Amino acid sequence: MTVYADNAATTKVCRAAIDAMLPCLDEIYANPSSIHPEGQRAKAVLDGARRKTADVIRCKPSEIYFTSSGSESDNQALLSAARIGKSQGKTHIISTAFEHHAVLEALKKLEKDGFEVTLLGVHEDGIIRASELADAIRDDTCLVSVMYANNEIGTIQPIKEIGEICRKRGVLFHTDAVQAVGHVDIDVGRDNIDLMSFSSHKFHGPKGAAVLYARKGVQLTRLLLGGGQERGYRAGTENVPAIAGMAAALTEQAKNIEANAEKVSALRSFLTDELLKIPGTRLNGSGESRLPGNVNVCFENVSGESLLVLLCEKGICASAGSACMSGSLEPSHVLLSIGRSEKEAKGALRLTLSEENTMEEAKYIAECVRDAVVRLRAQ
Amino acid sequence: MTVYADNAATTKVCRAAIDAMLPCLDEIYANPSSIHPEGQRAKAVLDGARRKTADVIRCKPSEIYFTSSGSESDNQALLSAARIGKSQGKTHIISTAFEHHAVLEALKKLEKDGFEVTLLGVHEDGIIRASELADAIRDDTCLVSVMYANNEIGTIQPIKEIGEICRKRGVLFHTDAVQAVGHVDIDVGRDNIDLMSFSSHKFHGPKGAAVLYARKGVQLTRLLLGGGQERGYRAGTENVPAIAGMAAALTEQAKNIEANAEKVSALRSFLTDELLKIPGTRLNGSGESRLPGNVNVCFENVSGESLLVLLCEKGICASAGSACMSGSLEPSHVLLSIGRSEKEAKGALRLTLSEENTMEEAKYIAECVRDAVVRLRAQ
Repeated sequence: MTVYADNAATTKVCRAAIDAMLPCLDEIYANPSSIHPEGQRAKAVLDGARRKTADVIRCKPSEIYFTSSGSESDNQALLSAARIGKSQGKTHIISTAFEHHAVLEALKKLEKDGFEVTLLGVHEDGIIRASELADAIRDDTCLVSVMYANNEIGTIQPIKEIGEICRKRGVLFHTDAVQAVGHVDIDVGRDNIDLMSFSSHKFHGPKGAAVLYARKGVQLTRLLLGGGQERGYRAGTENVPAIAGMAAALTEQAKNIEANAEKVSALRSFLTDELLKIPGTRLNGSGESRLPGNVNVCFENVSGESLLVLLCEKGICASAGSACMSGSLEPSHVLLSIGRSEKEAKGALRLTLSEENTMEEAKYIAECVRDAVVRLRAQ
Repeated sequence: MTVYADNAATTKVCRAAIDAMLPCLDEIYANPSSIHPEGQRAKAVLDGARRKTADVIRCKPSEIYFTSSGSESDNQALLSAARIGKSQGKTHIISTAFEHHAVLEALKKLEKDGFEVTLLGVHEDGIIRASELADAIRDDTCLVSVMYANNEIGTIQPIKEIGEICRKRGVLFHTDAVQAVGHVDIDVGRDNIDLMSFSSHKFHGPKGAAVLYARKGVQLTRLLLGGGQERGYRAGTENVPAIAGMAAALTEQAKNIEANAEKVSALRSFLTDELLKIPGTRLNGSGESRLPGNVNVCFENVSGESLLVLLCEKGICASAGSACMSGSLEPSHVLLSIGRSEKEAKGALRLTLSEENTMEEAKYIAECVRDAVVRLRAQ
């Protein structure tokens, strides 16, 4: 029995996405930049995908830029906002201590380039406070970048409040919504989001396609240079099959978003409750403002690594933190940011469920984790 | 009848590639960075693809870095070599006037950052002279970037000679081999290539996967920042399906490279001969040192754009220049570089054949082009 409970790392591609991709491989395969009818057929697929994507996050198709990954979108968003800031003499950026490394590493580079970065602290519930953000904004602040939902502990941030504050203060607002899009309802207008990154393979679309949403009037800076694709802002032949697959998956997810959230959060609640019955177990992050499928707990006196090994033996795919950082010996910067000690952080287990999981699987996971924790503690 | 003769823009994905991709979508779909068995299955696919790719260009798997596009590979190669040069106090770069825009635009950026760029002129035959390159090398030259084969006129450059000169003079050598890999036999060791870019969708692999080859000891600079993928040099979840597809397509192409070249160049020769029978027609670039499938001609007193429209009506997919620059009102920088006038350059037609094309199609193309040219000249 294999139970896949690592959906924050990546997801299985859904049927709708595969069906959308297949014809783009060997039938509608021309280059969408080509002016002949075959090229224009590919362009029509690309245009359709752009429209569908825009519909889900409620923006204009012209505000959607296709990229290759969430990391690329994050990088380009930050580079673009920094460039705009610099042109206005503003070089202060606010972000948070528990962002994804695609944001944190881009911020480090900007620091080298002369920007000043303030990383807001995260509260024990895994949520930042909008009031603290408001206090941190200065006259020279050009950008606020706060993730929509955290990739390790799944906590959802007060995005609407943050967006409102940023808009009022004239500061650009970027959100890394890689974990949120397809799982929670997002309206970039309602939330006053200026720049937003998200990635296909986190919502049952294929790998290799992602989006940078940029509100009309927000001037992007090119990260990849070359041809004039994506209206001049992202060079490289458009990955039509993956983009078509992403749009199909996103449309499907959007259609079922409430039903999926209901189903998945029921599994999550059950599993969380069961795990918390194990003595010395703490839930990481708020139990309420949280992605439907995210369970993240710390077990006292248990090595998360060893726990994963035992779960692997039972066919359960889980993780200790983000997949990007797997194999790293460092404790999770996310868990440290919410106040866990290094020792506690190393006893973490992340289980991320999707609508493909069943209650039977949740029960099986709970059982196996309990047995494994008991076994490890007895050693 | 649709005749696809725009294989330099992109190619149809082959069966072997599709077969390699499909299981990676909904079966071996986990994140290759995940340590659980499902993640490791995906990692095994990735490792296998890296080995297969390395085998074809005859390097070590550890010298292969997967990226999302030829443009990204070009950008990263140039950025990396420039960074190395700067650390040694060398800030002079040599390239050519007819490179792809992914190279030219990256060079423009480097010029803004303080590098000095010399663009070698191209001779009428579409080939640069190694002796002129040797003369251009200075003590402060850190990089030579010369494309393996030109994307518009298909002329193959004296890469081995250039590589030898660069190695002797201690200058890094990058080649944009996007049009060459899969079509001509490449051995990075034999050719003394330090950095090489190529892209899956130009040899019947899927879009969204590409390679940057970097010889052991050539330190890359990260272009995309975030997680530690590609041994720390390229952030973003690996696009396993596309990479698997690329490796399968490349292996297939390598296996058949001689037979394909023979077949395709026979079509090319036939078509070239037929087109040159039309009065006022000139072949652009050498007829010998040329990619097997590339035909590029200029017709006197004919608008290339109008010609394409008429060919479209006949179901023939061709182009006036590169797909990336389609719709551009500028004459091709490649054709200008080999001495064509602006007026001549606007009468260009590029037909790029693959082993999927037939002699029947070549005859049909020749006929339709002749009729169209006569018709346009009569107007």
